[in-house]
Order: sequence, then structure tokens, then C-alpha cells
Amino acid sequence: MLKNIISANRATSVIQAPFPLSSTQAEVINVLRKSGQASRAEITNVTGWSRAKTSQEINTLIEKGFLVEVGEGTSKGGRKPRLLRFNNRLGFVVGVDIGATSLDIAIADVNGLILNRVTEPADIRRPPEEVLGRCSALILEMAVARGIRPEQIIGIGVGVPGPVNFMRGVLVAPPLMPNWENYPIRNFFKEFFPSALVVVDNDVNIMALGEQRSGDASNIEHFLFIKIGTGIGCGIVVGGRVHRGNDGCAGDVGHICVDKQGPICRCGNRGCLEAMAAGPAIAEKAMQSARDGKSELLRKMMEEKGGLLTPEDVNLACREGDEAALEIIRASGQMIGEVLAGLVNFFNPSHIFVGGGISNFGNHLLVAIRRAVLKRSLPLATSNLSINFSRAGADAGIVGAIALALEHLFVVEGNSHFVS
Amino acid sequence: MLKNIISANRATSVIQAPFPLSSTQAEVINVLRKSGQASRAEITNVTGWSRAKTSQEINTLIEKGFLVEVGEGTSKGGRKPRLLRFNNRLGFVVGVDIGATSLDIAIADVNGLILNRVTEPADIRRPPEEVLGRCSALILEMAVARGIRPEQIIGIGVGVPGPVNFMRGVLVAPPLMPNWENYPIRNFFKEFFPSALVVVDNDVNIMALGEQRSGDASNIEHFLFIKIGTGIGCGIVVGGRVHRGNDGCAGDVGHICVDKQGPICRCGNRGCLEAMAAGPAIAEKAMQSARDGKSELLRKMMEEKGGLLTPEDVNLACREGDEAALEIIRASGQMIGEVLAGLVNFFNPSHIFVGGGISNFGNHLLVAIRRAVLKRSLPLATSNLSINFSRAGADAGIVGAIALALEHLFVVEGNSHFVS
Repeated sequence: MLKNIISANRATSVIQAPFPLSSTQAEVINVLRKSGQASRAEITNVTGWSRAKTSQEINTLIEKGFLVEVGEGTSKGGRKPRLLRFNNRLGFVVGVDIGATSLDIAIADVNGLILNRVTEPADIRRPPEEVLGRCSALILEMAVARGIRPEQIIGIGVGVPGPVNFMRGVLVAPPLMPNWENYPIRNFFKEFFPSALVVVDNDVNIMALGEQRSGDASNIEHFLFIKIGTGIGCGIVVGGRVHRGNDGCAGDVGHICVDKQGPICRCGNRGCLEAMAAGPAIAEKAMQSARDGKSELLRKMMEEKGGLLTPEDVNLACREGDEAALEIIRASGQMIGEVLAGLVNFFNPSHIFVGGGISNFGNHLLVAIRRAVLKRSLPLATSNLSINFSRAGADAGIVGAIALALEHLFVVEGNSHFVS
Repeated sequence: MLKNIISANRATSVIQAPFPLSSTQAEVINVLRKSGQASRAEITNVTGWSRAKTSQEINTLIEKGFLVEVGEGTSKGGRKPRLLRFNNRLGFVVGVDIGATSLDIAIADVNGLILNRVTEPADIRRPPEEVLGRCSALILEMAVARGIRPEQIIGIGVGVPGPVNFMRGVLVAPPLMPNWENYPIRNFFKEFFPSALVVVDNDVNIMALGEQRSGDASNIEHFLFIKIGTGIGCGIVVGGRVHRGNDGCAGDVGHICVDKQGPICRCGNRGCLEAMAAGPAIAEKAMQSARDGKSELLRKMMEEKGGLLTPEDVNLACREGDEAALEIIRASGQMIGEVLAGLVNFFNPSHIFVGGGISNFGNHLLVAIRRAVLKRSLPLATSNLSINFSRAGADAGIVGAIALALEHLFVVEGNSHFVS
């Protein structure tokens, strides 16, 4: 039946993601989404159904054009099993990772394999039409280069650096990008890519999804992904799924209070973690140290750079052995660790992954975070806790944006996740 | 087939919870567990299976003796549907809620209906054999009074006031009850009730479960239950299920830092929420106010009571309009609210329920909590947030302990939750 839909897609643009499934078919799809590819026996093992029933559901999915049988798996005695994976003829999926100062865009097949990728500077403070227009142009360019027509793009996952109402797919009161508030990002992309399901999420949630796709994090039940950059945010995975909370804004840890007497944050409160420990605070403290004569190196750097220091300058000074710079980075790590200590008591994750630009500052930061967590969390909550840098690193966002789209391509009939 | 098991149970004690099911049978059981009773049509609606398939699974469960058809539901035109519920002949379930100073025990049928209940003072600092021995004696007394034999008790849910390793069913480093550490609670009950599945959990988790069974909280996806008493703890419900974390100790919010210069907590750190805002801190501050001459009423009460005040005394003074007492309670509420504000940013729940002894102190406390949360949480996270007293109130613990046992009576084959 989907063969017809696919050929229809070739001609017009009838195909329309997401694809509705029965709950049992969705279960098969879920197994495949987690493992990438699987044999019929492996799917039977996970679902717990009879072999006949599993085969029947799989055959329906193959008939519909959603799955194909490929290659050969590893034999455990007897005939080598054929493996199932998603049918690449279904179409293509795009990941869009919009950062405060950059765009990262990739086209992938429906199995998540990246085919093309492009990164370029951007300014999120520009109007959304302009930024999203540039994204669409880049996607179209990449598609043309690959011989892919716009209507063959069936999913677009978009990460944005601000609080997102996930169901509605819009930003709500985003501090970094005020003129994006309530802007209909989904509709914008739908105009260019009418067949695509467009899913919009917070940048940290997609990084958590990306982490899950990398290394062996797919088997981790409960973990946190903390992003330290211009802001500080947290992706939360519970039972293997991203927890977005009731309004879709869970994980906004940057505005947890660290010091009631601290500086005023852009959110209006005093002493938020972000205002005290993120990139701009690190740069601000370094400039203070330079002015106060606490660091000759920072003073010189600041003079050379026309009176302004960036967080990267502080990192550089730290690598040169500058004590003041080291102290600033340690202090940031400690504050982040103190907030995480509370969240570890509350949430009891097995892993915390640290990512984002500032995480490149290396071990001084990580060690300070670890120390503060171990000092303030309860022993039972830290006995099996690992705190490490993200393994997905700079790829977390783009891999996660693609995963976000793939995750929502198939839905149980009558169970649409999104509202317009 | 289970008819045989039940009659075997009558004679010897062959029946042994939990009961293994296929994953599809477990799905039917889940629907019933949530709704209490349901028609075949209602179950078909939730599972999304064909009517034939649903009927087949239900018939197997009836045949096994797990379900029965009873009474008549509401007709939507046509024949009135019969309703399914759990077969009371399966046995009985016990809830045991062990508090710092009291025991609360009840026997219920497998549909969760409480048949007998008893409450009495206790001292958790006594050896576990003594406290659990008393629990077993009380259960046996109630059982005998109802004509129930010990081997007919197929589930016991136990709540304890300390951090629990849920899989192993033991307390780990419990501050209130150090000599319970690693004590095999499950084995203790199994000696008296060999047919029973014994499930041990933290007191706040069972209160969250109890809240879910009361009022309409069963439909709330993400909520927090905060217990304020001698300690402060939090039950976390994510996607309708209690989140226990990687080591089973999630929700330990009492040791989140409120003031780095604050008093030393029994956990060894400074300025934990519990050390500053729970019952003992409230009493301590009131005694200080009495000694400092800040409150004539508190001074008099303290004199009358031989130099000691309880949290209840502070509540009494507050109700008499004593400003110092009111200020102490408000300050507690504010500190609890400030910690909750961070957790609201992080977790984005739709509801927070406040329970435990100190919550009886009424609106001053609740208002102070609400104010602090609204002041420090992000607007998007509080726009749909409700903060209220627990609707289950004093019943939350015992209802939850019973629900805990019921929840684990049926398991998907090969998926046992617990380790010895």
C-alpha cells in the first residue's frame, strides 16, 4: 500500500508524515528505532509475542513500505537471519541545530545516517524569517546536490536555544531571541517542505537525544545532559525518554538560585546559576581581574583585544597557567556542581554528561563540578554516579535534531503529539 | 488454570506472587489497575487492539482466575456491558506505613478496598525485629478477625521513613533508623506470609502513589508530592509512574542546600533544607524565640511544658496570633518554596501536593511556599502549576502502601523487578 503512496509521492506530494500505525506495529517500530536494525527473532524477544504474531506485524510493515529486509545478521547456528531496517525509499530527514551564533544543518536517510552537513555563523537576534529562510536555503542546496526533491523530505527536527512549548512548537519568552516569541517555526518550514513533519525542541533536549544515539547511552535509563555555554540548560532523560515536563520547559536549571545576594540575571531575579557561572559571567569576572591587577596576563590580553575578553580568552589564560583564570573556571564549576548536587539528590541519575562551548575548557571545570557534587549529594545517590564530558561532543545537537524528527515520524493512530 | 492454583492455595500454600503474564495480558491488567473496573469495550479503546483480540486476552485472564466479570456498566445504547475487575478470590493485600513515631496498617482486597485498619504509636529507633514483629502481629490479628489465613495474603507493601534501595528492598544509610541499614525486611515478612510478594519503598514514594489513587490525580502525568514532617522528602511522578532513580533514592530533597552558612545537618553538610525548615528546626527556633523574649506566649508554653516545645506548639501559638510563631512558619514555607522553585524549573510538574505532619499547619505555610515558587520559578513553568495540600491527606501513606503491593502483583514473564 505504501508503495502506492511512495509512487504518488514521486508524482505529486501526497505523502504526509507522520505515518499512523496500530499500537502493535508501533511497538515493532520502537524496537527498530532503538537498535537501528534487528532480526525477526530479536524483535520477538523484545515484544514477547509469538513468532507468528511478530512475523505478521513485520510483514504488514514491509508491505506498507515502512521496513525492508536487508543483508544478513550473525547466525547462532542454522540459517543466517535477515535483518530489518527502515525503508530508505520513504524519504529523508533533516536536522537543524540553531545556536546563538551558528547554524548546523544536516540531511540524513530515515535510518539516521548523515548524508550531507553544513555549518555557518548566524545571529539569532535577527528576525526569525531571516534565520529560518537561510536554513531553508541551505537545506534546499544540500538536497539539490544530492538529487533529493523538497517533497522527499519527510521530517525536520529543529533545535532552538530557548524555552519551547513542545506541543505547539513555539518559543515562549526566549531571553536570547525575544522576537521569536510564538513565531510559527513549523509552518515556516512546511511552506518549503510540505511533506515534512516538523518538530521543534529546546537545544539541550536535542543534545540529550544526540547523546543517547552516541556511544552506549542508549541503554542508560536516567541521565542528565548539562550544557554550559552562553546560557546553562539541562536535558533530562527518564526511563530512556526525554522528559519535557508539563509545559515542555523542563530542564531550565540556569535560573536556579545560587546566591540570593548575587548579580541580577536577565530573568529579573538575583544570583541565578547562569548569571554567575555561564560564559558571559566568566568573561566579566576575568575583565574584573584584569582591571583589579589580579592577573598580568589577563590585563595584557584585554589590552590587546581592545578592552574586551571572551570566555575563550579565559580558557587560554588558564592553559598558560594563569592562577586568576583558573580560579574563575573552578568557581564556575563549583557553582554548577552545587546546583547539580541538589538535582542529583532529587533525580538520582546514573550519568551526567557535560557539553556546550564552555565544556571545552577541560578538566579543571569537570573536576570542580565533580567535587561539588560529591561533597553535597547523598552517598547513596553518588555511589554509582558518573560525571563526564559528552561523548557526542559537538555532534550532539545535530545528531539529536535528526533523532527528534525520526522519533516522531511514526505515531499510534489517533495519538498525534502536536497541536497547531 | 488459576482456579487450580487458588484451590491449591486453600490446601497448602503453593500460590506465589508475583503472577507472570504475557506482555499483552499485562497491558489489560494495567488498564484495570488504573481504572479499577472497565468494560471490554473500554479496554479495547485503550489497547487499540481488535475486539476479538481483546476478548481473547480477557478470556485467558478470566480463565486463569485473575479477573471476574461483575455487575453492569452504563449502556450507551444496546445491551448493558458487564464490567471486569480483579478476582477477590486471588487473596488479600496488606499496606504497612511505618512512620518515625507510628505504625499504620491495613488489609485490603485485591481491588484495593480497605477491609480493616489499625494505627498505633511506635518508635522507629527500636530494633527492626521488634518493630516488624509488631507489624506482623497486627496483620495476623486483623487477618484472624476477618477469617483470612496468612497464606491468603499475596502482597505486602511497606513504606519506611528513610532512603530505600528499591530493587533490594533494604534501607541504605537511614539517618532516623541507623540499625535498620540493610535489614532484610522482605525476608522478615515472608517468614510469616510465605505467599506474599513484599515490596519496600520510601514513605514519600508511597504517599505519592496514595495521592495518585485519590481524587483525580490518576490522570496527572507529572507531579511532586512533598512531605514536611520530622524530615522533608519528595515523591516524583513522571508520566504517571513513580520515579525512583538509578539507585532508588530519588526525591531526597531534604538535603538540598539552602544556606551554606546554615546549621550542620545530621547528614554532615551545612544548611540543608531539612535542618532549617522541618519540624525539629521549627521547634528549635520557637524555643530560641521564647528564650530571647521575642514571644511571651511561646515563653509561657515552654515553661508549662518543662522547657521543651514541639512543632505542634508552634502551630498552636500561630493560631493564637503569635507573630514570632507565624514568622517561623512563614520562614519554613519560604525556604521550602525556594528549593521547590529550583525543582519546578528543572522538572516542570503540573501539580505539587504538600503533605506530612507539618502541612497541617495550614495556609500560612502553603501561602509562603506558593509565593517563593512564583517569585523564583520561570513564568512558563508556573503558568499551569497548582500547589495545594494533598487531597489524600493522612490516608496517602496507607493507600499508597496497598497500591505499591498491587502494582507489583502481576509481572511480565521474565521481567522480575526485584533482586534478593
